Amino acid sequence: MYKIAVLPGDGIGPEVMKQAIKVLDKISQKHNISLQYEFSDVGGIAIDKYDTPLPEHTLKICENSDAILFGSVGGPKWENLPPDKQPERGALLPLRKHFNLFANIRPVKVFKPLKDSCSLKDNLIEDGIDIVIFRELTSGIYFGQPKYISKDKTYAIDTMKYSVSEIERIARLAFEAARIRNNRVTSVDKANVLMSSILWRETVTKLHEAEYSDVELNHMYVDNAAMQLVRNPNQFDVILTGNMFGDILSDEAAMLSGSLGMLASASINESGFGLYEPIGGTAPDIAGQNIANPIAQILSAAYMLRYSLKHDVAATEIEKAIEEVLNKGYRTRDIYTGKEGEVLVNTDEMGDLIVENL
Amino acid sequence: MYKIAVLPGDGIGPEVMKQAIKVLDKISQKHNISLQYEFSDVGGIAIDKYDTPLPEHTLKICENSDAILFGSVGGPKWENLPPDKQPERGALLPLRKHFNLFANIRPVKVFKPLKDSCSLKDNLIEDGIDIVIFRELTSGIYFGQPKYISKDKTYAIDTMKYSVSEIERIARLAFEAARIRNNRVTSVDKANVLMSSILWRETVTKLHEAEYSDVELNHMYVDNAAMQLVRNPNQFDVILTGNMFGDILSDEAAMLSGSLGMLASASINESGFGLYEPIGGTAPDIAGQNIANPIAQILSAAYMLRYSLKHDVAATEIEKAIEEVLNKGYRTRDIYTGKEGEVLVNTDEMGDLIVENL
Ligand SMILES: CC(C)[C@H](C(=O)O)[C@@H](O)C(=O)O
Ligand SMILES: CC(C)[C@H](C(=O)O)[C@@H](O)C(=O)O
Repeated sequence: MYKIAVLPGDGIGPEVMKQAIKVLDKISQKHNISLQYEFSDVGGIAIDKYDTPLPEHTLKICENSDAILFGSVGGPKWENLPPDKQPERGALLPLRKHFNLFANIRPVKVFKPLKDSCSLKDNLIEDGIDIVIFRELTSGIYFGQPKYISKDKTYAIDTMKYSVSEIERIARLAFEAARIRNNRVTSVDKANVLMSSILWRETVTKLHEAEYSDVELNHMYVDNAAMQLVRNPNQFDVILTGNMFGDILSDEAAMLSGSLGMLASASINESGFGLYEPIGGTAPDIAGQNIANPIAQILSAAYMLRYSLKHDVAATEIEKAIEEVLNKGYRTRDIYTGKEGEVLVNTDEMGDLIVENL
Repeated sequence: MYKIAVLPGDGIGPEVMKQAIKVLDKISQKHNISLQYEFSDVGGIAIDKYDTPLPEHTLKICENSDAILFGSVGGPKWENLPPDKQPERGALLPLRKHFNLFANIRPVKVFKPLKDSCSLKDNLIEDGIDIVIFRELTSGIYFGQPKYISKDKTYAIDTMKYSVSEIERIARLAFEAARIRNNRVTSVDKANVLMSSILWRETVTKLHEAEYSDVELNHMYVDNAAMQLVRNPNQFDVILTGNMFGDILSDEAAMLSGSLGMLASASINESGFGLYEPIGGTAPDIAGQNIANPIAQILSAAYMLRYSLKHDVAATEIEKAIEEVLNKGYRTRDIYTGKEGEVLVNTDEMGDLIVENL
């Protein structure tokens, strides 16, 4: 039996989480996987109730679980709090650090039936976009010390630090992933300016030579990568990069794909424990109206099955069911264009349709 | 009389520089501006001749000048040198630091006659793109100390440091620029994670309240900015940001505009001295063939007239002449699509046409 910590969070979080649970109920029944959910508060709702975005009891529940299914957190109400009290930063960074979730895995793809929603001109994305970004998540400039504003407030310091072992473990996952995809890794750094990037490049190169020389590897500066994503996203298969660069490039890539409300990410540690979340935000303007797109949250549940519970077949079935429903023309409001063959559905209906197609 | 240090560099550098000089000759005659050029080597050619990308005598010539007109540097031949010996890094970073060129100004615009070359779908760029990026260029993680790889090569450190005065002086330029544009500044940072960004945001906010409250100011996280550039580039007027984020976002924006071969940048210091360069590279594959697009280099010359020599009228005339020539249908190979009304011209011809239209 698996224990799942379910943290719906704020905004549309609870209503899309409901759909993910429906889908998990169905798939677990089908595959005889026993799941036990433990719900808890995180983010803005936790600030309102307990004055902290990540209460002690929520953390306890996560510690006693096999995986965390995360909704989304934040909203205008909590926007003006100091950074470390804010729902997003105050919940996500401590969770990542506490559970050592060093690998953030973000598949970016254009769902074929939605190709028109891609931001790039059609000639740039003839075959859609299908990239996976491996972002290092618990080191780099996010956590390096020292990190402070000087007492007299005249200057401030952040430290970008990377160790060989930190680089190796994320690189390893990227190479492994490439092997079961298109066998190409692009490692992104700024080795013409940063010492940590020089070490990054050397470490990735050595690991490649020693253990993954069957995988095609190239190195790219981050400014060029930001360009190349626009110029020709299809040149990428697996992108491997550090915390800060990964933050920027993964959001750029997601927006290029035009599928923001349809993408999710997995953040995992060495033992396979992980946090799974949609990448879109809490969409406070449409919260509670049963019109949000639940697909990204359902996809998070699929990734949880794949990476933490090792039920790859079940995960793939969910992904297939999603494509199936899209192929049949069903659309929530955010992806509805009014073209012939499209049927507008609400959050609940989209959840039900995916369940039915399982 | 103004002295101009002319550093053509590598690849297509020399041949496009020739066109910029032609244009400068014509405009200076017209406006009675006396220009004296001092040519010198920089980049790969300087490595070949003097074993360093930035020879002492080149630096001397720059010191004795009123501005530096820079071509472009680099190429496959020098790619595998250690970073600080490479043409780009080894010439540009020392020049920026030596002359304290703290402000990198990068206009990103879609030239109307070339709208089709923009990477974004037409509905996203109805009015083209017209943004100016103000990037801090002599501080941040590029130059902060300590910066090293540990002796045992197990870890590496870079330091991101910003002082209030460094933030203020670049912010001031951005606000001033906004006033004569569309009066909006978007300051980009990562204040939910970085201490230097918290200080950045506070400093910009204070300066805004004290001296520029007539300008519209908003703050945006860098990951979101990377997204918003794709989603709706027209929401931006002036973008103000640090060294690292500016490096990434300005390249992303340039590529989105589809006008990479048509954009230039100015890097200036407090006294108005500056370095002016096209943002595209050396294009070694087409060097020496008289087919490269000289417009970005000619635009660099216009910026030099505007920012260092304070001849704004002359600068604007050059910009107008460029638009004029494009409107008449003349295209170098890189921007030639074969549509009716287009006339394919070579590098020299494009230079001559712009001169004629002055
Ligand atoms: C909320 C923020 C601290 C976080 C980050 O920068 O990592 C977010 O942008 C993300 O990518 O998950
Ligand atoms: C060559 C490199 C050091 C430089 C930078 O990162 O600043 C370049 O990318 C630029 O933007 O001018």
